[in-house]
Amino acid sequence: MKLYGFWRSLATIRVRVALNLKGIKVEDAPINLLKGEQRSAEFLAVNPQGALPALVLGDGKPALFQSIAIIEYLDEIQPEPPLMPRDARGRARVRGLSLIAAADGHPLVVPRVRHYMEHELHLDEATRNRWLAHWTAAALKSFEGHLARDQDTGRFCHGNSVTMADLCLASQVIGAKFFNADTSEVPTVMRIFGECMKLDAFDRAHPLKQADAPAQPGH
Amino acid sequence: MKLYGFWRSLATIRVRVALNLKGIKVEDAPINLLKGEQRSAEFLAVNPQGALPALVLGDGKPALFQSIAIIEYLDEIQPEPPLMPRDARGRARVRGLSLIAAADGHPLVVPRVRHYMEHELHLDEATRNRWLAHWTAAALKSFEGHLARDQDTGRFCHGNSVTMADLCLASQVIGAKFFNADTSEVPTVMRIFGECMKLDAFDRAHPLKQADAPAQPGH
Repeated sequence: MKLYGFWRSLATIRVRVALNLKGIKVEDAPINLLKGEQRSAEFLAVNPQGALPALVLGDGKPALFQSIAIIEYLDEIQPEPPLMPRDARGRARVRGLSLIAAADGHPLVVPRVRHYMEHELHLDEATRNRWLAHWTAAALKSFEGHLARDQDTGRFCHGNSVTMADLCLASQVIGAKFFNADTSEVPTVMRIFGECMKLDAFDRAHPLKQADAPAQPGH
Repeated sequence: MKLYGFWRSLATIRVRVALNLKGIKVEDAPINLLKGEQRSAEFLAVNPQGALPALVLGDGKPALFQSIAIIEYLDEIQPEPPLMPRDARGRARVRGLSLIAAADGHPLVVPRVRHYMEHELHLDEATRNRWLAHWTAAALKSFEGHLARDQDTGRFCHGNSVTMADLCLASQVIGAKFFNADTSEVPTVMRIFGECMKLDAFDRAHPLKQADAPAQPGH
């Protein structure tokens, strides 16, 4: 398999953790989002959406795309360790939590949106940074609202083993560090993030540990 | 079951179509997004994220939230007619297509983002409308890029029967009409939308056919 990603792509982090947990090795194909390589003809042939990550299975068929779809696929073809609960209601909760990051928080801070804010809306850097911090924090507060309330919350988002929701939570907290978002009001989120980062599968997926990461990363 | 929704919530449309296809009847609980009812203490007790839709199953447990998570749940508890393909790769494609709307297009045009653009960024109405049309059209073009290329595309997004991807595609096209987004360059999307709207399950889920829709809807 070949994974198209970028060291600081939050959606790619989620897939990397899943691959690490499942023990699936992939070839890395870095696409530099800051240089706009996602809009190249070569990459658009892989993923017409021009977004990361994309996973080529090597069977001659189109690449898989969208991190949540890729993670569910990996969980189906390699069920151990499971990333989804066994019961339908549990799966709905894990998917719902995952989508707080993947479908509500993250889409507001991706490079194409930052590009539009700078070049079409002509917003200054401070205003753009406030936007990034605001929506990243809002998603973390949504996580906190569910996690602090629900009896299903355990050591991790859903019980005491890692699920897809933890991959999404971790990517969102890593994004909070990039964007200087406030994390002081989300203690449950930060406790679970701490549990995640104790695990090798999360640690190895961290942006700064990727081969294409710069020695001194900027934003 | 009790569905918290709003007549013009694009995410609620997707769930309504799924319920109609499955023949599942629900009690409607309208939450007026334009009046900010999603931020009321009553609704935050239902969904701490303050977002629609939310589905209360009536078992005393927390509501399900996030449209994709709810649709997958409905498909698991009521498998006929199936909204997901039988093969893992097919499911990955349907989830990926679905998330183009649910995770990339729609989150950029929801009321909380429009509110921030008006009250925090102080952008004028024309600029805000360009944003709404731009991101709605971008998601449709992403759909088109995949659908026009892939051999798996049939009468609907994936083969010749309705899947979750069609629910998401239809909601995105309905959004395009709200936001005056250009649909002239997405012929495959519009062909499939036409197929969807021939079906009673889609027709009955249309915003203007909901009990809480105004007689003369504005934006």
